[in-house]
Amino acid sequence: MDMLWSGWGDPAKAAPLPETVTALLRDLLGVKPRGTAPLALTEIAVPEPPLTDVARRALADAAGGEEHVRTDAESRIRHTRGKSTPDLLRIREGDVTDLPAAVVLPASHDDVLAVLRACAAHGLAAVPFGGGTSVVGGLAPERGSTPRPFVALDLRRMDRLLALDPVSRTATLQPGLRAPDAEALLAAHGFTLGHFPQSYEWATLGGFAAARSSGQASAGYGRFDEMVLGLTLATPEGTLETGRAPRSAAGPDLRQLVLGSEGAFGVITSVTVRLRPLPKTRIYEGWRFASFEEGAAALRRLAQDGPRPTVLRLSDETETFIGLAHPDAIGAEDAQDAQPAGCQAVAGYEGEPEEVAHRRERAAAVLRECGGAYLGEEPGERWAHGRYSAPYLRDALLDVGAFAETLETAAFWSRVPELYAAVRDALTAALTEAGTPPLVMCHISHVYENGASLYFTVVSAQGEDPVAHWTPAKHAANEAILAAGGTISHHHGVGTDHRDWYLREAGPLGADALRAVKRRLDPAGLLNPGVLLPLD
Amino acid sequence: MDMLWSGWGDPAKAAPLPETVTALLRDLLGVKPRGTAPLALTEIAVPEPPLTDVARRALADAAGGEEHVRTDAESRIRHTRGKSTPDLLRIREGDVTDLPAAVVLPASHDDVLAVLRACAAHGLAAVPFGGGTSVVGGLAPERGSTPRPFVALDLRRMDRLLALDPVSRTATLQPGLRAPDAEALLAAHGFTLGHFPQSYEWATLGGFAAARSSGQASAGYGRFDEMVLGLTLATPEGTLETGRAPRSAAGPDLRQLVLGSEGAFGVITSVTVRLRPLPKTRIYEGWRFASFEEGAAALRRLAQDGPRPTVLRLSDETETFIGLAHPDAIGAEDAQDAQPAGCQAVAGYEGEPEEVAHRRERAAAVLRECGGAYLGEEPGERWAHGRYSAPYLRDALLDVGAFAETLETAAFWSRVPELYAAVRDALTAALTEAGTPPLVMCHISHVYENGASLYFTVVSAQGEDPVAHWTPAKHAANEAILAAGGTISHHHGVGTDHRDWYLREAGPLGADALRAVKRRLDPAGLLNPGVLLPLD
Repeated sequence: MDMLWSGWGDPAKAAPLPETVTALLRDLLGVKPRGTAPLALTEIAVPEPPLTDVARRALADAAGGEEHVRTDAESRIRHTRGKSTPDLLRIREGDVTDLPAAVVLPASHDDVLAVLRACAAHGLAAVPFGGGTSVVGGLAPERGSTPRPFVALDLRRMDRLLALDPVSRTATLQPGLRAPDAEALLAAHGFTLGHFPQSYEWATLGGFAAARSSGQASAGYGRFDEMVLGLTLATPEGTLETGRAPRSAAGPDLRQLVLGSEGAFGVITSVTVRLRPLPKTRIYEGWRFASFEEGAAALRRLAQDGPRPTVLRLSDETETFIGLAHPDAIGAEDAQDAQPAGCQAVAGYEGEPEEVAHRRERAAAVLRECGGAYLGEEPGERWAHGRYSAPYLRDALLDVGAFAETLETAAFWSRVPELYAAVRDALTAALTEAGTPPLVMCHISHVYENGASLYFTVVSAQGEDPVAHWTPAKHAANEAILAAGGTISHHHGVGTDHRDWYLREAGPLGADALRAVKRRLDPAGLLNPGVLLPLD
Repeated sequence: MDMLWSGWGDPAKAAPLPETVTALLRDLLGVKPRGTAPLALTEIAVPEPPLTDVARRALADAAGGEEHVRTDAESRIRHTRGKSTPDLLRIREGDVTDLPAAVVLPASHDDVLAVLRACAAHGLAAVPFGGGTSVVGGLAPERGSTPRPFVALDLRRMDRLLALDPVSRTATLQPGLRAPDAEALLAAHGFTLGHFPQSYEWATLGGFAAARSSGQASAGYGRFDEMVLGLTLATPEGTLETGRAPRSAAGPDLRQLVLGSEGAFGVITSVTVRLRPLPKTRIYEGWRFASFEEGAAALRRLAQDGPRPTVLRLSDETETFIGLAHPDAIGAEDAQDAQPAGCQAVAGYEGEPEEVAHRRERAAAVLRECGGAYLGEEPGERWAHGRYSAPYLRDALLDVGAFAETLETAAFWSRVPELYAAVRDALTAALTEAGTPPLVMCHISHVYENGASLYFTVVSAQGEDPVAHWTPAKHAANEAILAAGGTISHHHGVGTDHRDWYLREAGPLGADALRAVKRRLDPAGLLNPGVLLPLD
């Protein structure tokens, strides 16, 4: 199934906001309908594809047939940008400035190499396209002074399980596999990846690797980059294979150079990952803390001294109050009554029943010691039920004239309080100054021994030109993140949106080292121009 | 204290082999005394340092004083090569072909930058020198057709704890700190690194990072590269700083490009590491399995399903029989009686008493289920007592005319049996063919969910020209490792000895990516020429 072209997910699952919420948005944030409905797909004016017949034939030869090179308007619109709120606002208004010339669907590593050769030969850029769920401008290549057309390199035909080694507990998967399909293939052998980011239902294995994704169960299963044991990369200069052993002292870890390279160094054509046994038990539960500070201290204690739950998250006071921690409840009659004061946490446990019971019991003792009040399984189950639905809620918010966007960062524990306040204050100040005081909510979404990530949700009125209205606030948040010692992204990635701040984070020499790698693997600069690194 | 120049460790701890062992070596392996004692340090003929007065002054200015540029024979001999068996054999015979022109001792990051600038200006190469414990030719730069003199950049003056963050549980340490000194500084705050490789008593923090060291307690504390959260690198082109957050999705992980770079990209001038609380309890115990295969299956089970001991190792039948698993026992009257048949494992547990007791009890149940017989704490304590003494034993073996060397690799679990047999057979065949049938012992030294490392010890007679005699066997082992899907090094590193096999493992494009990084950070190629990457 294709994702909704103008928003998130399965079109059948879209639902309007309850009137109570619309009223709340109006009264609290001054949100009012913008009066213009989004265009229909067929209303969008699409220019002819800037593709010569020769180039099209070369791409078709590379991808194994004419049917694998698509230039119809719908295919091209569906491969225009990703799913950030600015992306959605632009496409809803019919802005197709980032339209690919064609969508090419290779079926194998060798196909991808051939497509890249064809692109090089015909002056085309190439943008690898998995689930299309980037929220950082990762699918909108930059045009320099001499813009060149680009093809969207859609990897959906590369959706097989290539190998599974039950002894080593590894599997090699193709990059175009969507996460649920990958889970189904692995479950048939009794295994799971354990990677469940909010984009789970649509995102692909290749995208997880390219963008260093992190899932909601990262406390138990780790980040995606920690699951990856090997990668194959197709580049304009040939093939790069990594990962002969789980760990090695043979030089720098080339896997970690490919992970996070966001399609700028090559196209990931296979991923070898670590597997875990399918858990027999899954339990999610709610906890309440008097304050974000108290809750954060509890999470830190579990992350550092254990026992570590599989899922561990903590909403701040605002998010707890608004109930975005479980979007399903928004607008329910009893939503506010059901919200306890303070901050709500979710702890989840997955694994063998006996081990889970023991771990849960010990973790509960720690949480109680840290001031936590047990809320039972209901809030946990509610979170689990709604864990992938926030992006649907965003579409409904956009429909009523609200602006909603998320951003995230991470830092060492000692800097988390400062980072939290700095980003929240920067967003609040920028949007208030722009005339649309926002609601800024935050949760700790991932914990480590040495630090944590902070995930912010911003809701406000849209303003006249919503993208232009948001941009200064986003930049203010980026500045606040760097100033407070955070990383510009914990799991969304760099894309084009974060690139300039990323370059400051990497430093001139770090950026130059990556530029040197890019020049060697992609001398013509045809891969994802402007993503991760600026155009030369 | 300086390490023994011609061998390992504290000269006061050197001890001759018991006569029983010498007799065993003679009868079993044909080992006979070579009749020539090693030279004394003062007997070694050292050429004048190839260093102009101008260059020496520039180095002195950079390092903060003339006393920090040493050109005396002893200093230079003490910085010649590392501690591989070929290194020792060469230096014992007075071979000073790899002698540095000078030993330079910078005291700070800025000093190091200045020293590198001085080297660039005066046509010198630079070899970073920490503990000097490389066993892979990491301290013997290659000379091309136009050899240039090099300085040993000894980091011993950079031995401070720069920062400690008890909330985030991180510390920033200078690279010249020896591990025991680092542990003492951290213990004063209640923390430990938990990194205890065999080189522990002499190796430095910078060396651990540069070579991706792995310690004997890696099952519990992880590898050194997993402990590192940030690094500062001084390069001829300036400073590279990495690590703004414990984990990040902001591009490729530059830390992982510095880790394992073995001084070829720059000099690591600070390392930020993750800390753990000092364990209150430490228990080590022995287990016996009927075969290496059965024992390996038990280790795999614990590594994959837990609970995971802090230390977990398994000797094969030969190593168990010979008792090298606890070198102290060699030659003891009752050594062979004390050896059980089959394969001996050591499991160690460190942490809080209650947690340790629970983990140990559950792990013991698994080990029993897998066929293990509990041997009590004595074999574990014996292992712990002798854990750093094998290199002393090697010196004693060399003294009586035996050859002894170690090498190691890692692979995914499903390939471990094949890798084990292939390397053992390659070593046995090569040395047997050369007329010195060897004793080849092996243990699993590190376990992961997806694979394990194999650590081989080879003992044989030396042959006429011991280095030339060993080289074909070492190359045969390297070939066997690659053919069986292993990595050329799990924790010793690449250096010059493994480089050609490493390049095959990295592949031409992977090697070229690293070459591109090297050219950007070290355009004159003055850093560790020939280490990791060949001379251009």
